[in-house]
Amino acid sequence: MKKRTRIAILVHGGAGAKPVGPAGLRIVAAALETGLSLLKRGGASVDAVEAAVRIMEESGRFNAGRGSRLQLDGHRRMDASIMEGLDLKAGAVAGIENVDDPIRVARLVMDRLPHVLMSGDGAARLVRFFGLDTERPPTGDSLRFLKNVLKQKSRPVRLFREIYGHETVGAVARDESGTFAAGASTGGISAMLPGRVGDTPLIGAGIYADNEAGAVSMTGLGETIIRAGMAKEICDLLRTELTAVQAVQKSMKRLLRRIRGEAGAIVIDRRGGFALRHTTPFMCGGYASEGHRPAVASRFGRVR
Amino acid sequence: MKKRTRIAILVHGGAGAKPVGPAGLRIVAAALETGLSLLKRGGASVDAVEAAVRIMEESGRFNAGRGSRLQLDGHRRMDASIMEGLDLKAGAVAGIENVDDPIRVARLVMDRLPHVLMSGDGAARLVRFFGLDTERPPTGDSLRFLKNVLKQKSRPVRLFREIYGHETVGAVARDESGTFAAGASTGGISAMLPGRVGDTPLIGAGIYADNEAGAVSMTGLGETIIRAGMAKEICDLLRTELTAVQAVQKSMKRLLRRIRGEAGAIVIDRRGGFALRHTTPFMCGGYASEGHRPAVASRFGRVR
Repeated sequence: MKKRTRIAILVHGGAGAKPVGPAGLRIVAAALETGLSLLKRGGASVDAVEAAVRIMEESGRFNAGRGSRLQLDGHRRMDASIMEGLDLKAGAVAGIENVDDPIRVARLVMDRLPHVLMSGDGAARLVRFFGLDTERPPTGDSLRFLKNVLKQKSRPVRLFREIYGHETVGAVARDESGTFAAGASTGGISAMLPGRVGDTPLIGAGIYADNEAGAVSMTGLGETIIRAGMAKEICDLLRTELTAVQAVQKSMKRLLRRIRGEAGAIVIDRRGGFALRHTTPFMCGGYASEGHRPAVASRFGRVR
Repeated sequence: MKKRTRIAILVHGGAGAKPVGPAGLRIVAAALETGLSLLKRGGASVDAVEAAVRIMEESGRFNAGRGSRLQLDGHRRMDASIMEGLDLKAGAVAGIENVDDPIRVARLVMDRLPHVLMSGDGAARLVRFFGLDTERPPTGDSLRFLKNVLKQKSRPVRLFREIYGHETVGAVARDESGTFAAGASTGGISAMLPGRVGDTPLIGAGIYADNEAGAVSMTGLGETIIRAGMAKEICDLLRTELTAVQAVQKSMKRLLRRIRGEAGAIVIDRRGGFALRHTTPFMCGGYASEGHRPAVASRFGRVR
């Protein structure tokens, strides 16, 4: 007989300079409830992560899926990834268009292809092949956002601190079999060069899940998260005696000291510990487990 | 006055089931000589890595740059990456076409763009913008290779074991200032779906360099290297008391135990130690340092 592990799920809706409003927090809570009820019925952590991320993608309220920011050419190009910790299975897509829930496509890559990461036209072909494409105009919010950004003349890091970074979404979970999963989804950076790939679809940068360590999903200034290899680094630290909070703090302090990066993280460890931490003033997110009703907030512990 | 560190460079020309011939080994030796002479003149490790990789890319003998394998549509699409360990700067390109030395484009991304990874059309625009494009027909070898692969009916992992994996190229170096660098370049998997991205352009999977740890460049079955997060994992192990050989062995044994992956690695650590290891029967590569003439071979220690 298998030992039954304590189930848990964490989600986030992005780290940034400003707090997310009550409407955003309600969606975060709905994502948690959906994932939790799936886990309570004995569902797999990878299904809970996918379901929670899809709620946020489809809401149009976050910079992911339906609500994704537009690139310089007026198109939305999205990145997403998903990973399961038992066999280190993973799937990811980069620069995908015309789909409202890119994490579904990442899941298809994981389940159906011999590959881990599909990008650009190759990913677009998958979307059409599996009949997932939606040809909808950009949301009014994303058009207004692009126009505002194009009026700015700030440098990327400054822009990030002021307006970017917010509202990438992600989730991590553990199911009753003890298997971890992690997922993430983003519309990328508004008004940026088409072809730029951030940390979200990169296994080891944006997400990582390993039953021998835990699960991590990152948000923030993607380039610095890639250079620091953060999701994998935090998982490697979880193999030691560090708690989830200690591991994420150590990795974030290194990020700040070495390259002055910006990041938010949700982390769950083997011993049932968890952490929501950010170097930015705010990160919206929440936590739920068998004994705890979903708790959401627009900020948690800030690491400096 | 800065302390002068012992310079060193390692290169590889891919891990696989068969040994590379004498002509391939001569190019590996030439790549080592070029990188070493640059380091001896006080050059930066990142320049030595780029120069060594370019020798192999331009030779047409390896599955990288000029000699890249063709995808199912008859095009070559290449991936490359480069990283410097002082400030964790990195640049990478995925799915790039019409260029003979993709690592030059990765270097341009590192030096000139606020991004780390550029893919597909966005990367192609960079190639044209910097005037690096060459419109040359595929090499006869790569056409013959594609035709042979299309006659096979084996599954990907079996195909890899028999014919793939060979001849991705990479280099790691340390210069006299103590700065590490790592680079890699590949033509990907012959006859595969356009849009597939392997480990080579992914910082933390295919390469990693950190002055507080060392430098790593990987080759092998890309999907398993991504899922295991190998380059970052080996660098994280180099922060401990493990030697380069012990770190790479630990990571490769985990790769074999968890997901039966295939990999080759070249590694250099802070204390001047180095390792060339592979789970495959063969990996061609070599080592050179101030006191040692380049030594090349078609196999080193195999990890089982």
